[in-house]
Amino acid sequence: MDLLKALQWRYAVKKFDPSKEVDQQLVDKIIEAAWLAPTSSGLQPFQIIDITNHDLKNKIVPIAFDQLQVAECSHLLVFAAWDNYTAKRIDHIYHYISSERGQKPDRYKPYTDRLKDAYLNRPAEENFEHAARQSYIAFSFAMMMAAELGVDSTPMEGFDNEALDDLLNLRELKLRSVTMLPLGYRDAENDWLVDLKKVRHPKKEFLIEIK
Amino acid sequence: MDLLKALQWRYAVKKFDPSKEVDQQLVDKIIEAAWLAPTSSGLQPFQIIDITNHDLKNKIVPIAFDQLQVAECSHLLVFAAWDNYTAKRIDHIYHYISSERGQKPDRYKPYTDRLKDAYLNRPAEENFEHAARQSYIAFSFAMMMAAELGVDSTPMEGFDNEALDDLLNLRELKLRSVTMLPLGYRDAENDWLVDLKKVRHPKKEFLIEIK
Repeated sequence: MDLLKALQWRYAVKKFDPSKEVDQQLVDKIIEAAWLAPTSSGLQPFQIIDITNHDLKNKIVPIAFDQLQVAECSHLLVFAAWDNYTAKRIDHIYHYISSERGQKPDRYKPYTDRLKDAYLNRPAEENFEHAARQSYIAFSFAMMMAAELGVDSTPMEGFDNEALDDLLNLRELKLRSVTMLPLGYRDAENDWLVDLKKVRHPKKEFLIEIK
Repeated sequence: MDLLKALQWRYAVKKFDPSKEVDQQLVDKIIEAAWLAPTSSGLQPFQIIDITNHDLKNKIVPIAFDQLQVAECSHLLVFAAWDNYTAKRIDHIYHYISSERGQKPDRYKPYTDRLKDAYLNRPAEENFEHAARQSYIAFSFAMMMAAELGVDSTPMEGFDNEALDDLLNLRELKLRSVTMLPLGYRDAENDWLVDLKKVRHPKKEFLIEIK
């Protein structure tokens, strides 16, 4: 689909058709887009949890303030960011980067030393917030990729993050949930939002041009 | 361009060709994608500043820790989020939404009352951080749209936000800069990053599937 048309077509689905599954090949592409998203210093400080298990999706409904999309969607993607930056996490990805690029293992040591200086002296909450912002890039790439493939989604921030972290055992992985992205197909006949005009601020209020 | 190929093709350009301008039609599409990005409760709590003025771009170089991309790019997009949520801002967009949808002006009052209850009792910093996260969705949509159009960009967080806010008089607009996205065309011969393999965490470390 033309990408701007896809962005006009997409909306935050309020009612999915629970009988329609998204083809795994399409889901793989959506996850691929999220995986390719750039992040600050290339640390990629988050993971995706792809949930298709019905019981688990149902358990998330009350955690998501009874928004049924999390149960009626085909695949529920949870974006969870690192709870903090650590030397181990920084070294792990940079050892992998140098290995994948055929470089010496200590190729990036001066760079990772600077990252450690910057991050390891900051409060965990500040580092988590920074990691959470990075996860928004992947979350957005996934949403846009889904739209381009004609797959519906609902960007969701409104849920009880701590309850979801407990349910998914994210604390053990030193992750904290940030957003959810249910994927599926709209139930157009029963979705109150589908026909309402998409409204954004007028361009003259949104855009400042300095020539 | 195929969207996944475009995401493989894109990288954080370190050296733009300053002789190449991006066609305004393409820039308009990139800004359109950012403008269409969804945001929490539809508040769209940010603006874009599109800078092509050479003197101004040059003044931003030291603010961006001497990263020359901000001067050598064709268009420099600055994403700036609301410094806080206010009743006026919430009412402004919801009056506009109801007007654009042909609804009564008070159609969304119960909803905006709930938003005000939630936001106006929170610290400004927490609200700014929430608005900043929303701006990342638009920032990401712009980046992905640029890639699809074959336009290069550099996602940038590393700059002196307060100095940029001063220079662009963002405080007067009650905005705070969050990210920058220089747009242009890569100088492939002089960019050290262009040929280095794009590396992300192995999928088995990135993705958790719960079936």
